[in-house]
Amino acid sequence: MSLGINILQAIGRYSQMLIKVKGLVASKRSKYQQIDIVDTEEFGRVLVLDGLVQSSEYDEHYYHESLVHPAMVLHPNPERVLVLGGGEGATLREVLKYRTVRRAVMVDIDEDVVQLSRQYLASWHRGAFDDKRAEAVIEDGKAYVERTTERFDVIIMDLTDPYGPEIARQLYTESFIRRLYSLLADDGVVSTQAGTSFFFPDEYRDLLESFRKVFRYVDEYSTWIPSFGYACNFIVASKVGSLAALSEEEIDRRLRERGVETRFINGRVLKALLAIPTYYKATQGTPR
Amino acid sequence: MSLGINILQAIGRYSQMLIKVKGLVASKRSKYQQIDIVDTEEFGRVLVLDGLVQSSEYDEHYYHESLVHPAMVLHPNPERVLVLGGGEGATLREVLKYRTVRRAVMVDIDEDVVQLSRQYLASWHRGAFDDKRAEAVIEDGKAYVERTTERFDVIIMDLTDPYGPEIARQLYTESFIRRLYSLLADDGVVSTQAGTSFFFPDEYRDLLESFRKVFRYVDEYSTWIPSFGYACNFIVASKVGSLAALSEEEIDRRLRERGVETRFINGRVLKALLAIPTYYKATQGTPR
Amino acid sequence: MSLGINILQAIGRYSQMLIKVKGLVASKRSKYQQIDIVDTEEFGRVLVLDGLVQSSEYDEHYYHESLVHPAMVLHPNPERVLVLGGGEGATLREVLKYRTVRRAVMVDIDEDVVQLSRQYLASWHRGAFDDKRAEAVIEDGKAYVERTTERFDVIIMDLTDPYGPEIARQLYTESFIRRLYSLLADDGVVSTQAGTSFFFPDEYRDLLESFRKVFRYVDEYSTWIPSFGYACNFIVASKVGSLAALSEEEIDRRLRERGVETRFINGRVLKALLAIPTYYKATQGTPR
Amino acid sequence: MSLGINILQAIGRYSQMLIKVKGLVASKRSKYQQIDIVDTEEFGRVLVLDGLVQSSEYDEHYYHESLVHPAMVLHPNPERVLVLGGGEGATLREVLKYRTVRRAVMVDIDEDVVQLSRQYLASWHRGAFDDKRAEAVIEDGKAYVERTTERFDVIIMDLTDPYGPEIARQLYTESFIRRLYSLLADDGVVSTQAGTSFFFPDEYRDLLESFRKVFRYVDEYSTWIPSFGYACNFIVASKVGSLAALSEEEIDRRLRERGVETRFINGRVLKALLAIPTYYKATQGTPR
Repeated sequence: MSLGINILQAIGRYSQMLIKVKGLVASKRSKYQQIDIVDTEEFGRVLVLDGLVQSSEYDEHYYHESLVHPAMVLHPNPERVLVLGGGEGATLREVLKYRTVRRAVMVDIDEDVVQLSRQYLASWHRGAFDDKRAEAVIEDGKAYVERTTERFDVIIMDLTDPYGPEIARQLYTESFIRRLYSLLADDGVVSTQAGTSFFFPDEYRDLLESFRKVFRYVDEYSTWIPSFGYACNFIVASKVGSLAALSEEEIDRRLRERGVETRFINGRVLKALLAIPTYYKATQGTPR
Repeated sequence: MSLGINILQAIGRYSQMLIKVKGLVASKRSKYQQIDIVDTEEFGRVLVLDGLVQSSEYDEHYYHESLVHPAMVLHPNPERVLVLGGGEGATLREVLKYRTVRRAVMVDIDEDVVQLSRQYLASWHRGAFDDKRAEAVIEDGKAYVERTTERFDVIIMDLTDPYGPEIARQLYTESFIRRLYSLLADDGVVSTQAGTSFFFPDEYRDLLESFRKVFRYVDEYSTWIPSFGYACNFIVASKVGSLAALSEEEIDRRLRERGVETRFINGRVLKALLAIPTYYKATQGTPR
Repeated sequence: MSLGINILQAIGRYSQMLIKVKGLVASKRSKYQQIDIVDTEEFGRVLVLDGLVQSSEYDEHYYHESLVHPAMVLHPNPERVLVLGGGEGATLREVLKYRTVRRAVMVDIDEDVVQLSRQYLASWHRGAFDDKRAEAVIEDGKAYVERTTERFDVIIMDLTDPYGPEIARQLYTESFIRRLYSLLADDGVVSTQAGTSFFFPDEYRDLLESFRKVFRYVDEYSTWIPSFGYACNFIVASKVGSLAALSEEEIDRRLRERGVETRFINGRVLKALLAIPTYYKATQGTPR
Repeated sequence: MSLGINILQAIGRYSQMLIKVKGLVASKRSKYQQIDIVDTEEFGRVLVLDGLVQSSEYDEHYYHESLVHPAMVLHPNPERVLVLGGGEGATLREVLKYRTVRRAVMVDIDEDVVQLSRQYLASWHRGAFDDKRAEAVIEDGKAYVERTTERFDVIIMDLTDPYGPEIARQLYTESFIRRLYSLLADDGVVSTQAGTSFFFPDEYRDLLESFRKVFRYVDEYSTWIPSFGYACNFIVASKVGSLAALSEEEIDRRLRERGVETRFINGRVLKALLAIPTYYKATQGTPR
């Protein structure tokens, strides 16, 4: 039974999920959002921002590996990586697994998220913040992207949902995507989580369209994240090639050569993810 | 909206209440129960034991005054008081308002509840634990009552519900009530909270019957406690008289003479509470 | 346990109640609102409008008697009664208990509510719609009040909450209350339900203030309605006298003389309700 | 927002899902279970048994195609098919798409489920019950399987979860699986839905082990079903071959030759489903 402290989180507009909490770890109202870190019965430790599970101990690798590796593998030689959001440090952790990476910049607006994650989410970042190649910048991602003159091989957007809080929404616009394009090297790749296309099909398609207007190659796939209550969509966009063109063997070869060990994503799984429809209602011909 | 961390608590067998949490204060799995102290949007700070709100900052005075003052006023000269449960210290606080009181013993099974309450629920106990007249005993209330040879003028049961966790249920049996009777002075009074007679009419009536079998005078009334989601029932039983026999003026005189200041209970309100039916379905002729 | 179909209803801004449904009776999207009639485990049959329980089989008498009888008893000789809202017919039923009543007009905007209530809520109306003294008008209460030239002894507002849907809000304004005043006979009385003053203290006080600006005598009280999850506030306003001036005996005498039998309200209970503070946080000195 | 009538359904032991209901269609307490058919905001029409969504209009094809086609495609020439459970008729509908099928027997214990589905879930069965090749038997699946002397090419178990109500649990035991084995032709195939291996890893592994003890070839895969709140596991077991041995092209060829049109499952998708780990915590090395 689930009486007691629970997380009540939105899945769709008219669907919610209740997750039983076992113990309270930390809680802070930051300048930007309500931050809660709790221990749950079925997902281990969980980071919750404004009432939405960002990631959980038992399934964060599904999410972070799905977000990072397809983009990192697609690029021929990822050396300079920009992470927007991702204050838990787990996206940074996955990026730093690549021995090709010489510099990884993480830009998160909320210092408190980073601080509390460093303190309470050690199994997420695993020391990533202390890696000499990493730099953690506390700043609005939009402002950072507008002012930087640096160029990147890969940019990873690890933000709240495209249909979520206002603050992140402006990072999903076509004009912002164009700005990312201009920051990328000629063989650059960008990846983003994109919420759930089943519950927000229109918002998802709009975002996909924006990427397609700006980038020549755009791939999409989704991974079920149990603690989200849905299969999370991801979009990978590139200037020079599609994931579809990489064989299972080539993906595994690149991971191996770059020194990357994974728990979920590999050549076989990534090709499979790309083969499964991403469940947005209209694509499936389902009545809305 | 109420997305985010919430308390999900039982109201009846088939009714629940969701209460939005604003921040996490403390959380511990004790030897006996899950203890959570949280700050909520609509009730201020709240103590939650095994998923049930025990009392909240904004309405605890309705509960604790309804539990303590009728019994304390009914007794001609309450000097020795025993509180079973009530680890928050608020029942003790109300008892110690009486300048007639020379000794007040609080017996709570869970040291962690007392410890966390002392630390985080200052507006509940307001120093009651440090009053020289008070003694806090950490022990199973049943064991204490069985071993003590002390006699008391007033005994107050501030436990979980009669139909709640097993550990408290044995303190609501007829044989236990007889034991309390034997501990009371000849003009002794006992009072207890009794959960909700609307949602648990049979359990409530059984308890009321048990008191009636043991005590000559038994009064009942209920007070709406917003954070419980229901009007909480109370039973006051006495060897020598009923609350019905006290006039409004006499109640106010006794409170005044004994130096007691209250926020909710006074002569007028107590007489009114006694006049209103206590909502158990059968009494009201309501179909079940 | 409560898995399965449930009513999820708001109690406050940040508190909700889950009520387990046993069976579905009827359901319609009317021109104005979503209407659901369901059978529940703990409240019997329930009428739900836009997700809020309007009344339930097991506790509707607490609500309807608290709404109707204080006003009807306060008036020296209620002959002409106007009910705004109240499409279930239970308010009309209580009004028609008075043999003094010669004409009772019920004005509800939603024909479907009236139709479904007639069909499925027989224990609510109990034939009230067929009483020769009764007239059911399907019209916006505001429009009716503005166009009618009739005068009434008692007006009863049985609407959704003052802080609820827009459509009813305009019937809680000072200017509307002034219009009601002008429709009332010289000894006229108006009564209204007023939602919950604990959870919406500001909105409640605004409404109370509006009545006080218009009427010389204004009484307030509250009754716990289990299926609402709170004690519901009521306001009774009169041109010529206060409920405070009626003795318990006088109330009982008037009920008796007028041929009224009740299950909840009588002289003793009504005087008690008036004696208990109505729990709005500020009055009680509770921190907000 | 989701206030109003909702389905509250279990996802795991400590996780639940709230699904907003738009309208009530039908509701019956049958001899075996509570049956509710409702229209929802985000899933269209939904069949709910004992508080659990069985299938929804917008995503039932993901479920039913995942359950039926892998098994039907694996068999070289499926002519005689037995469906246990599946009273909605959608599993039968998918089975009857195969022109190889000469006889399809559906055995459901609950006549009321079949009756209400025929009346209100036309888009599920689409006339399957009227197909001359189909026979609907109202009987306990266990009793049917024990008494029949017929042999089948494919058996499909479309029951409540292996860790769900007692009545279905006895159909997931090793001895029952052995009985199914004995009913199957020499090249027979059985498939079953298996609940969620993420939330019930032990129960899932036990079931998988039982199949492995009885059958030489056992495949597993999972498909996210939005209205379940999780990716649903499926197990396909065969006497003579594994799905792993079928190429994408061979799967598509068999579907085409047998006259089967699908919306979700095809060679590419089925091979992909088989390639993705099925998320049970221990396999993934996730702490429990």
